[in-house]
Formats: sequence, C-alpha cells, structure tokens
Amino acid sequence: MKTKDVGEKGLISDLISPKFKYSIDYGMGDDAAYIDIADASVLVTTDKIPEDLMALRMGLMSPFEHGRYLSEVNISDIAAMGGVPIALLLNLTMPDDFSVDYLSAFLDGVKASCDRWNVVVVGGDTKWGGSASFVATCIGQANNNNILKRSGAKIGDEIHVTNMFGLFSTALAYFIVAEPKGMKLEESELEFLKKKLIYPEARVSEGMFLSSQDCCTACMDITDGFSQSIHELGNASSVVFEIHENKFDYHPLTLKVAEFLSLKPKDIAFGVGLDLELLFTTNSACNPLLQNRYLSIGKAVAGTQNYLIDSKGSKSMIDAKGWAHFSGKSPHDLVKDNININSLTKA
Amino acid sequence: MKTKDVGEKGLISDLISPKFKYSIDYGMGDDAAYIDIADASVLVTTDKIPEDLMALRMGLMSPFEHGRYLSEVNISDIAAMGGVPIALLLNLTMPDDFSVDYLSAFLDGVKASCDRWNVVVVGGDTKWGGSASFVATCIGQANNNNILKRSGAKIGDEIHVTNMFGLFSTALAYFIVAEPKGMKLEESELEFLKKKLIYPEARVSEGMFLSSQDCCTACMDITDGFSQSIHELGNASSVVFEIHENKFDYHPLTLKVAEFLSLKPKDIAFGVGLDLELLFTTNSACNPLLQNRYLSIGKAVAGTQNYLIDSKGSKSMIDAKGWAHFSGKSPHDLVKDNININSLTKA
Repeated sequence: MKTKDVGEKGLISDLISPKFKYSIDYGMGDDAAYIDIADASVLVTTDKIPEDLMALRMGLMSPFEHGRYLSEVNISDIAAMGGVPIALLLNLTMPDDFSVDYLSAFLDGVKASCDRWNVVVVGGDTKWGGSASFVATCIGQANNNNILKRSGAKIGDEIHVTNMFGLFSTALAYFIVAEPKGMKLEESELEFLKKKLIYPEARVSEGMFLSSQDCCTACMDITDGFSQSIHELGNASSVVFEIHENKFDYHPLTLKVAEFLSLKPKDIAFGVGLDLELLFTTNSACNPLLQNRYLSIGKAVAGTQNYLIDSKGSKSMIDAKGWAHFSGKSPHDLVKDNININSLTKA
Repeated sequence: MKTKDVGEKGLISDLISPKFKYSIDYGMGDDAAYIDIADASVLVTTDKIPEDLMALRMGLMSPFEHGRYLSEVNISDIAAMGGVPIALLLNLTMPDDFSVDYLSAFLDGVKASCDRWNVVVVGGDTKWGGSASFVATCIGQANNNNILKRSGAKIGDEIHVTNMFGLFSTALAYFIVAEPKGMKLEESELEFLKKKLIYPEARVSEGMFLSSQDCCTACMDITDGFSQSIHELGNASSVVFEIHENKFDYHPLTLKVAEFLSLKPKDIAFGVGLDLELLFTTNSACNPLLQNRYLSIGKAVAGTQNYLIDSKGSKSMIDAKGWAHFSGKSPHDLVKDNININSLTKA
C-alpha cells in the first residue's frame, strides 16, 4: 500500500495517531501539542512549507516572503491554541547549488515575522538534500486556564471566524481556473489577490484574546480551506455545523470570480486555501459584545453532515474537500477538482 | 554564491547566527536551545536524518532502525545539554508512492526509542514531497542549575568521553574503503560494525548525571566525528585540547582496519562518525572517582590548534575534518577524503 492510497488525513488518523496514544492527552491532531514542563504549560508545533506551494510554483513569492510564510504558519498554530509564541527553530535542507542570497533573504523574512510577534529564533538544523525543504518548529506558552482545543464545541455553541475567509481560495480559483479561461481583473485587484496567496498573517492577538475568555469552547486556524476546517472542528468536537449564508458576506472578488465561472460564491470561498483566520466556537456564557466582535456564521448542531443554509432557506451539504496531501494529483488539478466537486453539490 | 561555496558550518556561523543575535543567549550553536517558559527551563532541538545517510545508501538499515535513528539523534541533543527529554514531534515528507508498511515500521522504531527514554510523541506534520524527508523536534527540561553548554571549558579542565569512540568511523572506513580493497572481517565483527552504523544510542542518563555535578564545565555529543567535535567544543570555549593517546584505547577493530589500510588508528577513529558519545570537560572541583567514571583523554590548554600526543610523546595536529554538509562531494568521497586528509597529517 502506498501513501496515496491512504491520503494525508488517513495516515494521521489510522496509522500515526493510534501508534502514539497515551493515557494523557497531549493534543495529537490539534494545531499544536501541549505538554507540562515543571509548572509551565508549553505548546509546540512543527510545519513545513509544501514543496508544491502554489505561490512558489506560480513564481509569485519572493525569498523574503517564502521565509516569512514559514514562520507565520508555525506561529499561527500557537495562536490557534490561544498561546503566546516564544521561540522558533529552523530545519533547512538545501542542495549544493542553492543560492546563498536566496537563503539570506529567506532568513530575513523569517526574522521579520518573528520580530513582529516577539518570537526569537533559537536554533535548528542545516543539511544538504537533493531538493530544498524548509521546516520550522514553534514553541509557545499556553494559557493554562484555557487552551483552545478543537474538541470543546458543544451543541448550541455559535461558530465564528475572526475575519472574512475564502480569499486565498478565491486567488487560487482566479489564477488557476478563471484567468486561463480569459477573466481579467484590474491591477489593484490582482495585487490584492496575490497578497492573499503570499502574505498570510497569524492571528496571535485574536487567539490570546479568545483564550482569555472562558466562553471560547473550540478553535483552529484555517489552513486547508473552510470546508475542510469546518469538518475537522466538528469531528474533533462530535458535532456538525449549520452555517447561515445570510450571516456573513463574501468578498466582492469572490463574487466576481464565482460569477465568471458560473459557480456559487461558496464553491469558491469554501475551497482549498490557507487563510490563517481562526475558526472558533463560543457558548452562551459569552458577552454578546464579544460574540459580535467577530463574524458569527452559524452554530453547532447534532447530525452527521455539515450544511449550509442559503439566503432562501435551502440547505446544501458542505463536503470536506480541502487540501489533503498524497492525493496522487498535482496541486493544480486538486484546485480544479475542488471547485468542480463543490459545484456538483450545489443545492 | 551557492551553499557549497560556503559550507554547512560557514552558513551557520556567517549567515544564520548573525541574523538571529539577541541580547539574551538562547544557545544558538549549542546542541539544543534553552528558553525559559514561566518557571520552566525548556530545551528544544531539531534534527533531520540526512538523505544521504550512509547506512541507508548501503542498504543496511531497516525501516524500524531508520525511525529509531531519527528519534535517538534528537534525544541525544537534549542529553548533551544534561536535560530530561520529554516529547517528540515528527515532520515527515513522503512521495505519493511511499510504502505505508515502511512508514509503519519507521514509526514503530520512533516509538521504541521514545518509550525507552519515556518520551511521548505528541504531534507533527505530514506532507507530500518529491522525496522522503524525516525531521523530528525534541523538547526537554533542562537542569536549571547546570545546563551543559559547549562554551564553559576553561584552561586546565580535563576532557572526557563517556565511552570508547570512533566505532562509527571505523565501520565507515571498513565498508567504504577497506572492504572494497579486499579486507575481510568475520561475521560477528561485521555485525558489530553494522550495528554501530545503524543503532546509535543517546546518552541520556550520562547527560543527566553530568548535569547534576557542578564540576562538568562543557559538553556536546559526537555527531560529526571526533576531530570535528574537539574543534567545535574548543572553539565554543576559546580553548584548544591536548589529547593524550596513552590515556585511552582504540577498539581492536579500529586497530585492525587501520593496519589493513596502513594508517594510524587515529586516522580512522578521529574521522567522520556519529557515535553519540558525550564529549565533556570537568574542572578540579570534581570528585576524582567521578572523573574516573568516564574516559579521560586529555586537557584544555591555551593555543590555536588541537593536538594529539602519542605514546612516544610526539605531537600531531588534529584537523577539524569531520562531517560537513554542502561540500559538493558525495558522502562516499567525503569519507575517503577524510581518511586521506587525516593520514596526510600523520606525525
């Protein structure tokens, strides 16, 4: 059997997690692991930049942005647990003919991201390899009183997003599908979408704020697309989500790209994408002012399948069709498929 | 400029370290980084299995041993700082057609190593990539009163190794140079040397014990060969080492391979190799019984170059010719060169 026969999520749930089950829960499957060291509650996570990252393949990303991206996605995992990011380690693999100028600018990007969040780069590993590979590890301190896990959502909880989502997936849909079909955006719109692909921003303050509120019951960052994230948060909490389309707005560019492709906006916005927005749930103990601070998009309900209720009251299923490695497909085809699959399930 | 023009050690000292200098020392350049989180003193390190690991290229290593190796080298970095290893994260990259059976046995190897040291595997990252790449991160707790850094050795300190060293490099010299030239060892000797290549053992108890003794002034694990390690420990501490050949024994197989190749034993034993033995210094506050517990091999002195004094009292320089990535050479040639270069500097 090959990895592509099992898929990324299958490998994690069926092979990796069962091997490393302990009597204590250390957060396997959450955005970061939590371990107690002396009296400290420590968070730790590791993330690699995919070798087939679309923005790299498309030539949109500078070395500086490449490094910044690596740091930001790692810091985001600490943010998603409500923690304070503290330190970063770099594990870099490069071939013999890798440009030192590229590496230098890459490290400047790492530093810029870390400096912004007051994170220190404290070490790592540098090795030769047949192709370049960039991995980081981020260590943080958890708010011991309220680590934001994925598993805490209860039926009746509201679900929220820290900001408008679906812009990364809109950018992918535009550059991979719409533009080759002849769609033309204005220069400023292009720049806006490009930035969404190459400049993700961790929601550190938001995570810390949510963790300070006892009413936040579950949280994760959106890194594999909205549909996939909804699915994962629901699975971890044993609930499903009812999303109300009239409770949030799609970005005008999402609407524009969807219209050009004759799709519904959700077919674009719910797809593959790394927004780094936090997807979280709150219970009724929340101050309504707090709940209104972020986009409320629906609620946790009983059932077996997440669904969307559109403005006319019709229901459609939300398939878990986000990013998954080992699909045996190119990222390019995955984005195309993703859009097609979502569009087939239109209500 | 390309990475091979600068080399691994140059990249770290001239590019990476200067970019990440802070007013507090977090241990950049040490075996693991140390950071304070609340009241805890936390150690963290990351290490990747080289893609060109000799034992893999030579087909000697099973998937189980491959996974075990990854865990053990990471845990060793915590041991080298005198810490208690606590948790491990895995960052695994594989192509679509990677064998799930291989991965499963690999994970069993990780688990066996972790279980031995009471380390829990708490999370990680699994991604597609053009070739397999295995990275881990190990988190531990430092002995706050005595973190074993590389920089603490003072002139007059004795230098020790936890056990006989140079068996990994003996195995490399045998399999890469001597065997192709016609040398034949007995089956039991072959098995012994193979095990040295594929089954490194972290010195966790030794590190913790040394850290409990105030007289241990500097420490590191030998992962790039004895010559290179002596060089790095001396550099970090601003001393050089005088090594006395009559204070320690070479392994009979080291003597045998050296004789076959008409080399001195040190030309084999000081070369490229990952022994995971701890190389450490102690000051005069040490109980002599403690100092005698491990191999004492020489002392820290003033000067600019590490040297060996042989049994007849003649001095020879110890070149820093261990493992270094981005040499532009195959590992195979590097081992050959390493032996040749050392032999050219024979006294």
